[in-house]
Amino acid sequence: MRIHLVNPNTTRSMTDKIAAAARAVAGAQTEIRAATSAMGPASIEGYYDDALALPGLLAAVAQAEAEGADAHIVACFDDTGVDAARALARAPVIGIGEAGFHLASLIAHRFAVVTTLSRSIAVIEGNLQRYGLDRRCCAVRASDVAVLELEDPRSDARARISAEIGRAVREDRAEAIVLGCAGMADLARALALEHGVPVVDGVAGAVTLAEGLVRVGLATSKAGAYAPPRPKGYVGRLADFAPPGLPKPD
Amino acid sequence: MRIHLVNPNTTRSMTDKIAAAARAVAGAQTEIRAATSAMGPASIEGYYDDALALPGLLAAVAQAEAEGADAHIVACFDDTGVDAARALARAPVIGIGEAGFHLASLIAHRFAVVTTLSRSIAVIEGNLQRYGLDRRCCAVRASDVAVLELEDPRSDARARISAEIGRAVREDRAEAIVLGCAGMADLARALALEHGVPVVDGVAGAVTLAEGLVRVGLATSKAGAYAPPRPKGYVGRLADFAPPGLPKPD
Amino acid sequence: MRIHLVNPNTTRSMTDKIAAAARAVAGAQTEIRAATSAMGPASIEGYYDDALALPGLLAAVAQAEAEGADAHIVACFDDTGVDAARALARAPVIGIGEAGFHLASLIAHRFAVVTTLSRSIAVIEGNLQRYGLDRRCCAVRASDVAVLELEDPRSDARARISAEIGRAVREDRAEAIVLGCAGMADLARALALEHGVPVVDGVAGAVTLAEGLVRVGLATSKAGAYAPPRPKGYVGRLADFAPPGLPKPD
Amino acid sequence: MRIHLVNPNTTRSMTDKIAAAARAVAGAQTEIRAATSAMGPASIEGYYDDALALPGLLAAVAQAEAEGADAHIVACFDDTGVDAARALARAPVIGIGEAGFHLASLIAHRFAVVTTLSRSIAVIEGNLQRYGLDRRCCAVRASDVAVLELEDPRSDARARISAEIGRAVREDRAEAIVLGCAGMADLARALALEHGVPVVDGVAGAVTLAEGLVRVGLATSKAGAYAPPRPKGYVGRLADFAPPGLPKPD
Amino acid sequence: MRIHLVNPNTTRSMTDKIAAAARAVAGAQTEIRAATSAMGPASIEGYYDDALALPGLLAAVAQAEAEGADAHIVACFDDTGVDAARALARAPVIGIGEAGFHLASLIAHRFAVVTTLSRSIAVIEGNLQRYGLDRRCCAVRASDVAVLELEDPRSDARARISAEIGRAVREDRAEAIVLGCAGMADLARALALEHGVPVVDGVAGAVTLAEGLVRVGLATSKAGAYAPPRPKGYVGRLADFAPPGLPKPD
Amino acid sequence: MRIHLVNPNTTRSMTDKIAAAARAVAGAQTEIRAATSAMGPASIEGYYDDALALPGLLAAVAQAEAEGADAHIVACFDDTGVDAARALARAPVIGIGEAGFHLASLIAHRFAVVTTLSRSIAVIEGNLQRYGLDRRCCAVRASDVAVLELEDPRSDARARISAEIGRAVREDRAEAIVLGCAGMADLARALALEHGVPVVDGVAGAVTLAEGLVRVGLATSKAGAYAPPRPKGYVGRLADFAPPGLPKPD
Repeated sequence: MRIHLVNPNTTRSMTDKIAAAARAVAGAQTEIRAATSAMGPASIEGYYDDALALPGLLAAVAQAEAEGADAHIVACFDDTGVDAARALARAPVIGIGEAGFHLASLIAHRFAVVTTLSRSIAVIEGNLQRYGLDRRCCAVRASDVAVLELEDPRSDARARISAEIGRAVREDRAEAIVLGCAGMADLARALALEHGVPVVDGVAGAVTLAEGLVRVGLATSKAGAYAPPRPKGYVGRLADFAPPGLPKPD
Repeated sequence: MRIHLVNPNTTRSMTDKIAAAARAVAGAQTEIRAATSAMGPASIEGYYDDALALPGLLAAVAQAEAEGADAHIVACFDDTGVDAARALARAPVIGIGEAGFHLASLIAHRFAVVTTLSRSIAVIEGNLQRYGLDRRCCAVRASDVAVLELEDPRSDARARISAEIGRAVREDRAEAIVLGCAGMADLARALALEHGVPVVDGVAGAVTLAEGLVRVGLATSKAGAYAPPRPKGYVGRLADFAPPGLPKPD
Repeated sequence: MRIHLVNPNTTRSMTDKIAAAARAVAGAQTEIRAATSAMGPASIEGYYDDALALPGLLAAVAQAEAEGADAHIVACFDDTGVDAARALARAPVIGIGEAGFHLASLIAHRFAVVTTLSRSIAVIEGNLQRYGLDRRCCAVRASDVAVLELEDPRSDARARISAEIGRAVREDRAEAIVLGCAGMADLARALALEHGVPVVDGVAGAVTLAEGLVRVGLATSKAGAYAPPRPKGYVGRLADFAPPGLPKPD
Repeated sequence: MRIHLVNPNTTRSMTDKIAAAARAVAGAQTEIRAATSAMGPASIEGYYDDALALPGLLAAVAQAEAEGADAHIVACFDDTGVDAARALARAPVIGIGEAGFHLASLIAHRFAVVTTLSRSIAVIEGNLQRYGLDRRCCAVRASDVAVLELEDPRSDARARISAEIGRAVREDRAEAIVLGCAGMADLARALALEHGVPVVDGVAGAVTLAEGLVRVGLATSKAGAYAPPRPKGYVGRLADFAPPGLPKPD
Repeated sequence: MRIHLVNPNTTRSMTDKIAAAARAVAGAQTEIRAATSAMGPASIEGYYDDALALPGLLAAVAQAEAEGADAHIVACFDDTGVDAARALARAPVIGIGEAGFHLASLIAHRFAVVTTLSRSIAVIEGNLQRYGLDRRCCAVRASDVAVLELEDPRSDARARISAEIGRAVREDRAEAIVLGCAGMADLARALALEHGVPVVDGVAGAVTLAEGLVRVGLATSKAGAYAPPRPKGYVGRLADFAPPGLPKPD
Repeated sequence: MRIHLVNPNTTRSMTDKIAAAARAVAGAQTEIRAATSAMGPASIEGYYDDALALPGLLAAVAQAEAEGADAHIVACFDDTGVDAARALARAPVIGIGEAGFHLASLIAHRFAVVTTLSRSIAVIEGNLQRYGLDRRCCAVRASDVAVLELEDPRSDARARISAEIGRAVREDRAEAIVLGCAGMADLARALALEHGVPVVDGVAGAVTLAEGLVRVGLATSKAGAYAPPRPKGYVGRLADFAPPGLPKPD
């Protein structure tokens, strides 16, 4: 099967790291096709970047659909655009945030999220609440690491993340940790060993959830919230995003 | 004071109707400046349109900020992009959905929302939950009226909306109704008379809330979730949305 | 328009301060008529005072209705008697507690309340829960300042309130503060400057909300919870509170 | 032990019926002293009556405290003034609403409340939410029976209540019913037989809860929300309600 | 009346202590019959012990039913098997955990639970949530005391429990404490004196609730969740637990 | 990898059907080892059966652990004993109920559960609440089909289940359906085609979740709620369930 993984920011080195993490857990029959967004922010840090990452993300999903993807993974921990992608795509769509939360719920009574910047806490808490999984999450903590520091080998980002995990275990009684950024995908194993609790990387989690949905033949319901976009005119710079079925505006 | 009202869809007739509703309640000292989004969908119906309406909306907010707006109103009942606009703008930002919910909470113990298409119910319920006001909302009902039907004088949209209000009052014990689309702004008064319960139009409500915030000197907190966007590179078609502070990418 | 503001405690100096705060934000066309309760406690601190403040409050509301008020403001942060006043009055009724919560929700993702005595925390938390806005409130904190200390220029009340605000910002990640007592109405601006986050005074907020409701033509729904009191006999000291429509008992 | 039962409305025939229901379940060592409020409404139907019933209720509680009551029961299903009475009294205080909800939770997974008028639904739902027991309550239904109809032997009140119970069992899957008015205390047994599900009368329930608290030596905590009223001046018609400890105002 | 109290662990000394606490509050007409489980764990500490305590508990309940019990008390703070016992028994069933929570709700706005080991926190929090009373509980704290240490007079268990109560009062603003283990039944009175807040023992509480239910004639509803077990075959070691009505398997 | 699937009821034909459903989706490298409980009820219908299924279930889990299972699946929709099994096992444990809920959350905004008997509704609703996923579930509906009817080819069980699914789609606006019994595992595909919405079988879902957890190297956290059972004496018929580490009682 072919899983389309889209990095909704425009930093290619991050896509490469995410794709490697995805391939490390994918089944032998699974092809991971990774795409980097062609427009928008170099990293996603807060509501503004989230909003402007959407067109590039949706363009990548549309193209992958056309090429026959069996599932889509949105590789931003904010689950940016997952709802819009579900409306657009025929194949199932998984966000790495929700993947992390769902898997953590299956192995721990209480989990904590350790993310990058404090401005992302509100986004993540909002998602947890929509999914219902805030009831299982004891804390969303920021490590004050900017996303692109994770791409810089000289940064002490890993140490700050590890320190925050330690606080979550001690102060919040977290039984498991969900890493709150796609760019942390390569850290999970070592941090789990260091802290003695499971550490969940949403990228790897999303791959197995996507494989699972495809294997059991489940795709997004089109019966309500995720009905296909209605045909209508789109104008200006985004005119070519008009949903299929309507003659393109000229 | 100057209130910037942006219609995040690209249908100018709808902007005109909304602006008229806004001016009808604005104070004598208030100037309403209405803008129509320059890019994206002609109407916003569900998650996909919501996502693609964001760049046009944020461009309009950025321009109004530059021109000295005292407050911004986002005239889409989904409150599309309100969080991103709060991060971007210095002046306070109000969505017409939240305006309707907050005002309804002040005049009724239970209110219902009557919106356009059923695909919007999930968006609205999600917002209510984030705001906490789902606890006061007894139902979100769809009237199966497409947004642009509201612009068509031959449509029976009004009758279908009225029928749904009747059901909300009888079956859900709704004590007040919030109209779930900016395009319904001209119907509130007549429907209230018809059904004998308050009918809240979010556009009018947002104007008075915006005036109020400006009058008491309150603007969005920049201390957490709505911190200003961090300077960073944006690429491709959206390169010019890069937050100020960083040299524009070439 | 004429807004009736009632201080449900019997301390006239506090009414004067509240009325000044109200007039400072009221529109040019708005007349603020302030009343002091004629019976009951000199300050409202906890459930017992709340209960005994109700007759005086409702008498003031009834009189203002008779004199043609366009809206009523209940100037006690506990929102004492707001529900009963809504049942009694034809004009809309706003409590300064709910006013503060609703406005804070529009400018911050998380807000904290800083009130007077710890016994009021339960009252305020109960209100937040009924309104649904507990989901947006990260803490209700007491500054251990008695209400009437706020009337005493020699008190260090302001310093204690400021210290508690500091804790809310640092420890609770509050992005905005709601001042939890009508008697703090004169402190908002200076405390906001001091702490660098918005500080919301419910008195000012309630004025603009009341003006807004009147301007858009909304008043309390009489369809359910706030149906007018049924005519019936009242006896004893409160016999003259019998709802209109029934011959007064003699 | 001596249990003080106060009917916070001023209708003596109702007090007699409630007292009889209380005595029917009280232990041999328990004395039930029933009081009728000396001021306020003849029946409590909605927020306005609730508010004006408080002084009479609190006066009765204060007198019973002075006479050495071991526990207090507030015999209005709205639990009017229970919080204020807890602050005032040394002995524990139980409302018949909460008594009914707590007992129903112990014998059924889901219960429904059948009350008098629809205006009381909001009051009852608010209480359930504060207590947390809304999670166990599947519906609050009104039978459109006025409180004093329950005192009139020619009324068909009983038939209307029974019909509503039938609907709760069939449509809401209620496993037990809580009768939502003190005036229904004499109907519980027959309605249970008729419908084949437990029917809980809060008056009887409150008596056994009060006896239980006394027997195990528990009384209201004075550590927080229910701290004793602070000494302060009260003026006007309610001057004699000033909390003890302060010289009475003259 | 005859109340059947079952200790679902197999430690007889603990049964004796619990029975003594029960008898100390039982009415003169009440006979407490205490049983110790005949199979399973010596103490119940976490989900595994909870599960294996069920057959012994249900066997004891079945036998007591056959002997004519008027009510059953399950004397494990986890409320292990209370739901299953309700399905099995005709007489009402009370868990000591729920008894403690319900009574604490009647005498305090916020209560804390102080239990034995941290692994029990999840069990207790889950129960509070199902009952709805998590809304009234400000903390569930573990004292790191193993259950059987409570049977050992040389242990410092009491000191550790007291220290944890102190923290709950100071740090969580707990207004009352619920003791989170049947084995603590003898400590309540002294700890209340020591800390100046009510301390609730669920064993004593359950006795008075059970007496109350019997006195008012209430037993478990059989209309839904607690319908009697359906007749069916049981095999192996548990074959004799097959619900009555079916010929025993051989 | 080796996945241990335990049917916690004692009906072998049901185990065979469940195992077939599991093998139909398992990866090529996955071995499904299915076990039937050796003691307890022939089917699990309500709290009593749930309780008595636990020893057989835990014995099967313990044996599979000893034989080197990589993951465990509990094939009862009530998720009976999943928490206890997590405490006991080193390998991860998945219940088919939670599997169904989590997967449905990834493909639909709102899902409904269609189960067997109405007595199971309370169990399932309780689980949904603990997991947080009640927020995504719009209804739990019973089809009034007994579990073992699903094993009887002459039964009209399938028709009744299909009718209930139809009602969930029409009346509850369910966008997807979760089948609420392991015995329905063979019906999912046909019912999805019939109703045009995704139909989730928890057995297939649990297999892919278990494979996923193993593949990414995640197992149950032992840091809190699921700490290994403490060594202690067990007596009577269940003496051999004593946790390892303590000399077996004789």
